[in-house]
Amino acid sequence: MAGTYSYRISSRDIDATLRARIYTIGDLILQAAGDDADMLGFGIRDLNLGNASWVLSRMAVEMRRLPERHEQIDIYTWVSDYGRLFTTRNMTVADSDGVEIGAAVTLWAMIDLDTRRPQDLSALSNKGTSLVDREPPIERPRKVGTLDRNVSSTGRRPLPHVGEASREGDNADGDYVCAEHPYRVSYSDIDFNGHVNSMKYLEWMVDLLMAGPDAGRVRDGRCRFDINYLHEAKLGETLTICSADGDAEASMFDIRNSEGISICKAIIT
Amino acid sequence: MAGTYSYRISSRDIDATLRARIYTIGDLILQAAGDDADMLGFGIRDLNLGNASWVLSRMAVEMRRLPERHEQIDIYTWVSDYGRLFTTRNMTVADSDGVEIGAAVTLWAMIDLDTRRPQDLSALSNKGTSLVDREPPIERPRKVGTLDRNVSSTGRRPLPHVGEASREGDNADGDYVCAEHPYRVSYSDIDFNGHVNSMKYLEWMVDLLMAGPDAGRVRDGRCRFDINYLHEAKLGETLTICSADGDAEASMFDIRNSEGISICKAIIT
Repeated sequence: MAGTYSYRISSRDIDATLRARIYTIGDLILQAAGDDADMLGFGIRDLNLGNASWVLSRMAVEMRRLPERHEQIDIYTWVSDYGRLFTTRNMTVADSDGVEIGAAVTLWAMIDLDTRRPQDLSALSNKGTSLVDREPPIERPRKVGTLDRNVSSTGRRPLPHVGEASREGDNADGDYVCAEHPYRVSYSDIDFNGHVNSMKYLEWMVDLLMAGPDAGRVRDGRCRFDINYLHEAKLGETLTICSADGDAEASMFDIRNSEGISICKAIIT
Repeated sequence: MAGTYSYRISSRDIDATLRARIYTIGDLILQAAGDDADMLGFGIRDLNLGNASWVLSRMAVEMRRLPERHEQIDIYTWVSDYGRLFTTRNMTVADSDGVEIGAAVTLWAMIDLDTRRPQDLSALSNKGTSLVDREPPIERPRKVGTLDRNVSSTGRRPLPHVGEASREGDNADGDYVCAEHPYRVSYSDIDFNGHVNSMKYLEWMVDLLMAGPDAGRVRDGRCRFDINYLHEAKLGETLTICSADGDAEASMFDIRNSEGISICKAIIT
């Protein structure tokens, strides 16, 4: 089973180029995921009854074109597999002519709301009926390597090109020099789960990119991002956003909490 | 002529209380204003043909209840008068039972896009047909007074209660002690006009309120805000958000640019 969910791009979704912001598309992709899980009977509301919830673990999105104001987009989404700890949910994004303008692959874990520990997905019912025998539309979200803030600027080396990463996302952990940006988590960052919204991390990263020399590259709307979600961040926490430029085509981010633990890592190409 | 515009509250519109954020409601109110102006033939797209645009000058919103996720709200909007420089557009916000849960009054000026100077509204056609003989649903947006950052803490005095302000919004200019918060304008703050989005100022203010002792008061969803828009702010500008507590029921904000000029002032009660 799979579903298609339609959204109209409105004034508040667009930037000065009159096209949707990349993290707004990410928001709509996650909304389609939530709407479809609800339809299948294992959405967050259903899971909460059993004291469990879905947690986004990794996400990859590739866009060929960003839709414009007043455009309608149709997000088609399906679950392609279940592992013991993760399930894979895929999306394609089409415009009103039916042309595919983007695609996404997301990995989700199910956690117990008390222990916050991952649950075994073997126990999940309606699994069989929800599966669709169709491969992910793009390379699965890769594992993002380590940024080492102690490396001197002479230690800088380019990021591997995303296309060169292995299918398993087992990117070699390299050390990259990073710039540090402090950030305090505000009310507007927190979503209905009480934690920082998944797309807010991407918004902070894009804000940094758009303030730098790569603004033009981001603005042209053809991009891929891979995000790894490692821990949750809460209201009032002070985070450090570490950013590093790779080669001309990639930027890497590592968002750490006050204990230096990575909350979220990403690569934008 | 008047119109009703319906919106559904989605996951990305709500906070941890599962109710819509106040500035999201503000966004939807402005969206209804834009949609209705388009319908009447003098929306931003039409005005742009004549090298002009609407600019929001003042806004007041009162909410009795903030809608919940999946709720549909109907925003009814009408123009009640035209002055030489300002026109008044009103809104009521109803839930799906038809119960009025909020209302707004907005004042707009028309500017020339080259000179950025206000235009005489007498020249505007289809004025007559657009007018609706119905009074604004709440007190008009008041003029917000001055925060003086040089006053010592002993000089602090309470804000007048909003209900005591004159109908003309001619609030006495008082001096209030303020706390200063630096803010750098990012990509995510800029809307399709190329300037900071009108509701972003409110978002910054609410973020400050929610980090302080007044968080509970704001969260309960019964509030009024009056905003004055004085100048535009652009990408990369460094602003100072000055905030001052009035009495137990009001907070005042003055957002200034690097030259100390007020960009936006507001009072939230």
